[in-house]
Amino acid sequence: MTMTSLNETHDPALRSWVDSANAPECDFPIQNLPFAVFRREGGEEEWRGGVAIGDQVLDLEALQRLRPFIGLAAEALEAASLPWLNEFMAMGQSAWSALRLALSRALRVGASGEADFVHCLVPMSEVEYGMPCVIGDYTDFYSSIYHATAVGKLFRPDNPLLPNYKWVPIGYHGRASSIEVTGQRFHRPQGQTKAPDAGQPSFGPCQRLDYELEMGIFIGAGNELGVPVNMAQAESHVFGLCVFNDWSARDLQAWEYQPLGPFLAKSFASTISPWIVTLEALQPYRHAFVRPEGDPQPLPYLDSDHNRLSGALDIELECLLQTPAMAEQDQPAQRLSRSSFRHSYWTVAQMVTHHTVNGCNLQPGDLLGTGTQSGPAPEEAGSLLELTCGGKQAITLANGEQRTFLEDGDTVVMRGVCAKPGLPRIGFGEVSGTVLPLRQ
Amino acid sequence: MTMTSLNETHDPALRSWVDSANAPECDFPIQNLPFAVFRREGGEEEWRGGVAIGDQVLDLEALQRLRPFIGLAAEALEAASLPWLNEFMAMGQSAWSALRLALSRALRVGASGEADFVHCLVPMSEVEYGMPCVIGDYTDFYSSIYHATAVGKLFRPDNPLLPNYKWVPIGYHGRASSIEVTGQRFHRPQGQTKAPDAGQPSFGPCQRLDYELEMGIFIGAGNELGVPVNMAQAESHVFGLCVFNDWSARDLQAWEYQPLGPFLAKSFASTISPWIVTLEALQPYRHAFVRPEGDPQPLPYLDSDHNRLSGALDIELECLLQTPAMAEQDQPAQRLSRSSFRHSYWTVAQMVTHHTVNGCNLQPGDLLGTGTQSGPAPEEAGSLLELTCGGKQAITLANGEQRTFLEDGDTVVMRGVCAKPGLPRIGFGEVSGTVLPLRQ
Repeated sequence: MTMTSLNETHDPALRSWVDSANAPECDFPIQNLPFAVFRREGGEEEWRGGVAIGDQVLDLEALQRLRPFIGLAAEALEAASLPWLNEFMAMGQSAWSALRLALSRALRVGASGEADFVHCLVPMSEVEYGMPCVIGDYTDFYSSIYHATAVGKLFRPDNPLLPNYKWVPIGYHGRASSIEVTGQRFHRPQGQTKAPDAGQPSFGPCQRLDYELEMGIFIGAGNELGVPVNMAQAESHVFGLCVFNDWSARDLQAWEYQPLGPFLAKSFASTISPWIVTLEALQPYRHAFVRPEGDPQPLPYLDSDHNRLSGALDIELECLLQTPAMAEQDQPAQRLSRSSFRHSYWTVAQMVTHHTVNGCNLQPGDLLGTGTQSGPAPEEAGSLLELTCGGKQAITLANGEQRTFLEDGDTVVMRGVCAKPGLPRIGFGEVSGTVLPLRQ
Repeated sequence: MTMTSLNETHDPALRSWVDSANAPECDFPIQNLPFAVFRREGGEEEWRGGVAIGDQVLDLEALQRLRPFIGLAAEALEAASLPWLNEFMAMGQSAWSALRLALSRALRVGASGEADFVHCLVPMSEVEYGMPCVIGDYTDFYSSIYHATAVGKLFRPDNPLLPNYKWVPIGYHGRASSIEVTGQRFHRPQGQTKAPDAGQPSFGPCQRLDYELEMGIFIGAGNELGVPVNMAQAESHVFGLCVFNDWSARDLQAWEYQPLGPFLAKSFASTISPWIVTLEALQPYRHAFVRPEGDPQPLPYLDSDHNRLSGALDIELECLLQTPAMAEQDQPAQRLSRSSFRHSYWTVAQMVTHHTVNGCNLQPGDLLGTGTQSGPAPEEAGSLLELTCGGKQAITLANGEQRTFLEDGDTVVMRGVCAKPGLPRIGFGEVSGTVLPLRQ
């Protein structure tokens, strides 16, 4: 089953009996219904699946004990109530859609089950989030041509955008074990670096610690090893998206990355936002995927009418920084840049199809990072490396502090949202992470 | 607990009441005792852990029902009897050693339990093997300087060995989902390639399909995210080693690998041998790790007396090919090359320590590939890419057939063994895999 159209769950006129979901600035209206794994903070409760509605989390484990649904929606609810969403993800689009429809109907103003459902709500302010699933493999793409060009200029001034870029959705295998959910606090990594003029490398703490503003794509139903997923099927294998911070140690990266790619520069930490927004919820924000004039068309295996007409997703992204000094003075995080996933040179479907064209199997819960989503303007860059021109031009913050790269105690916050006049706001919430000093 | 010496399980004089284990050419004498997951072939039995002894598999699930051991050995036996060895791997060196000692004593000539144990033996000829564990993350290193230099010459004639090679144990994240155990049969991968003189890439089946002769290193006890493993601790995190074929699509690799490393060129298939030989079993085959005259010493975090004195392992490797024509005429596989893991420029301990120095967490069951283990002589190359000088000089087989790269129906067999006069032979058995035609 491939989704190509809107259905009753997308109706902008829908309102929920959960009042907070109807506020115009709410990330989680009834048209969104993203999934997470959560529990009440501070306790020893079991982790379980939940759905965001307004400022509440609908506890799917509590809900499924009420047996509110029948058929596929009931089966999907049971799987989505578990401490890991892998089983639910594996069920595929028809199950995800059935549960979404059932939840949408139950949460609408006037729904008959309100009296029961209301007891399954937990205030979002009282919960903590877990990893939504076991991530078997994590792959990171490099899908912003603006990021690739800007970074290429720094690493290879004479050869910024390599000849394969406009043909191959460049990606590499990443480290799954060090991915955590929002709130990750990690020690500054250490490793080998070599200054351009040094005769040999030295060992010490990373001096050029950076973030990367990405989207994360969660695979739903997998494909069998040896059986590629074509463009027509690709989106049916995608469960949903989150916001993703792929922390990077630029000085480690510069010294280690040739010839086999980034390794320790990436594997110390990566942070996902807790809520996975389904591809179905993002339907109203599809738009045409147009390549710049003069660029080659994708090879046929990466091309389809559907992809050209509506393969891109208009997800606005922003990245914010809160320094220890700002936190001490209760100043909120300050925005460093804004961008959008619509700038991606490769669509979600193209990444999935390319990934599997050699027979590689994707499994439920696998994560694909999109790569840093920098926009065309320099101020739309999704990393400090770009915003500071490789660390040469410090950013001055509102309180007078300066940054080239991240300092100990810095907290980076990223947010994503789909918002257009006349359409319901589909928010991703945020992902936050904090740099701790080098571990002694 | 770190092993630095031999114990009674290594005594070359030990003999087993399983007669076949005492044959001089047997890979699995009582001094070896490697672990696998297996079941009787052709049935629907549950997978369970087993230990190789002679031409038999000791069924650990059947054995643990007899409760033959007490204390830590009993706990270890229970964990090692499960369908996945991750739990056993996580128990650490003291548990692995306790079980090894208990099994060694029980399998010796004259052991009191022979009458019970004999009922737990399954002939190796009647079993099939499963994956020994869930591999959370797979990392591939590049530890043979001879391989790195030879391949570097082909990909970058003017710049074969990059300046970081002698300082950084180069590695990259690999794809865990497509790793299978011996007997893997996979379709020829397809993808983008670009001929040097072509204006643009084309899409089609891989034309330069290759194997890579590697060792696989299984992580036992993991480390916490953010807590590096130093050289003194490194080996205690290693459960054991296997032989590993990291199939490679050279034409896909050449076009895709810059700037982020190999991706689809590797992720279609990788094959491990079924038996994991523990680091403890390999103790007698340790030897000094000496860098070539004039090469820099490793940075202190990658250096230790123990590593210099006995960090290397003398494991002989060989790679064989059986073409469809050979199979049809019942000709055995023909040897293409021999090499040894002792040529590795980086030791097991150095790979583990480097991998975690940035805080990256390794987990029980994670796999580290060593990279292709080519020796110093051209005929000791661990890949066809090297043996055929990049496909320019075909190999002529004994039956007159020629090969530059692998053809449909080819079966590649790799074997590993430790063997020295006066020491027990510690064999790895073999890993075999077959190329099927492009999937239609």
